Amino acid sequence: MVSKIKFFEINLETKEECDIIDITNKIKETVKTSGIKNGLINIFVPGSTGAVTTIEYEPGLLKDLPAALERIAPSNTYYEHEKMWHDGNGRSHVRASIIGPSLTIPIKDGKLILGTWQQVVFLELDVRPRKRSLVLTIIGE
Amino acid sequence: MVSKIKFFEINLETKEECDIIDITNKIKETVKTSGIKNGLINIFVPGSTGAVTTIEYEPGLLKDLPAALERIAPSNTYYEHEKMWHDGNGRSHVRASIIGPSLTIPIKDGKLILGTWQQVVFLELDVRPRKRSLVLTIIGE
Amino acid sequence: MVSKIKFFEINLETKEECDIIDITNKIKETVKTSGIKNGLINIFVPGSTGAVTTIEYEPGLLKDLPAALERIAPSNTYYEHEKMWHDGNGRSHVRASIIGPSLTIPIKDGKLILGTWQQVVFLELDVRPRKRSLVLTIIGE
Repeated sequence: MVSKIKFFEINLETKEECDIIDITNKIKETVKTSGIKNGLINIFVPGSTGAVTTIEYEPGLLKDLPAALERIAPSNTYYEHEKMWHDGNGRSHVRASIIGPSLTIPIKDGKLILGTWQQVVFLELDVRPRKRSLVLTIIGE
Repeated sequence: MVSKIKFFEINLETKEECDIIDITNKIKETVKTSGIKNGLINIFVPGSTGAVTTIEYEPGLLKDLPAALERIAPSNTYYEHEKMWHDGNGRSHVRASIIGPSLTIPIKDGKLILGTWQQVVFLELDVRPRKRSLVLTIIGE
Repeated sequence: MVSKIKFFEINLETKEECDIIDITNKIKETVKTSGIKNGLINIFVPGSTGAVTTIEYEPGLLKDLPAALERIAPSNTYYEHEKMWHDGNGRSHVRASIIGPSLTIPIKDGKLILGTWQQVVFLELDVRPRKRSLVLTIIGE
């Protein structure tokens, strides 16, 4: 069969720094809408202060992951980025670069492949609420 | 030529926390079996306490990488995740989210593109031995 | 339409540890050269002491990101990797494994999808200057 490429968007409004948003259901609906049964879906964050990964989406980990990001890029330290913009989000950029803006997941027999306790999440790493448009690319047949 | 999509699995039994398993040869065999000469292979970990990356597979780094994960998400700190499950693997989830569950590598002229000293590894981040099934998706021609 | 797969290379000479090189324009030129209008581009680092991610490319963050890498894998600690090679780059390997060697970005209507302040960067994590050849794989139509 011939491969198809289709694009979709997920639009989000985040509430605060370290808002972690479960986008699994939106991705599953997109896969269904696409009609593509076998292939790969790429979730991409256009922006330098957000990231995408997977996690077991439960309230404890929504605190534990930000605590680890504090160890990597603490709130209470000075960032050279401050010289450029004075917007207090140096840590946001650093955290986003380390986790990364891109995630690729298989689609098999019309279903997104994920573990039982594994959800796809957008991480708002900026220090203020943001509107976000994630780009979903599905390639397959 | 027309692109093909093929799926494969790698089944592993891990022995302990921070077991790092070299899956390079299994991936190379899968590429050969697939018959796909040019394209991309995606390695995906269904599960929220495992991760995939590359490393030079030698005994020293198998200790050095876990030491860095201890800095990011230490063993001897409290995790809110504990409230949900009481299974002592809060750090496992946090580490897995940061490294990530997905890796995509080019296949060119029938060969997996890797550096001379670069191996593909599965990281068992859970605190107990696990059976793991990784999903390999090859797209190409 | 039928999907195509095309390969390209980006050749770099890095100057020092934590050299962060903006490869966005080279990637955009490659996308244009490929003639592929819709699809995905994968940027892959063959090698275990380099990594690829995105960041807002401004002088402050080029210091802030290395500072975070120092927290994850400090310069002034002992690495078991030293026993194997005595080349003082244990931290380089650890940092590269955590950030990762692979990044996938959508191409839509002939354009690379990126945020306004988001650039694609190669991170030289080795402790000495290196020649690097990154592999770009474009799949699409």
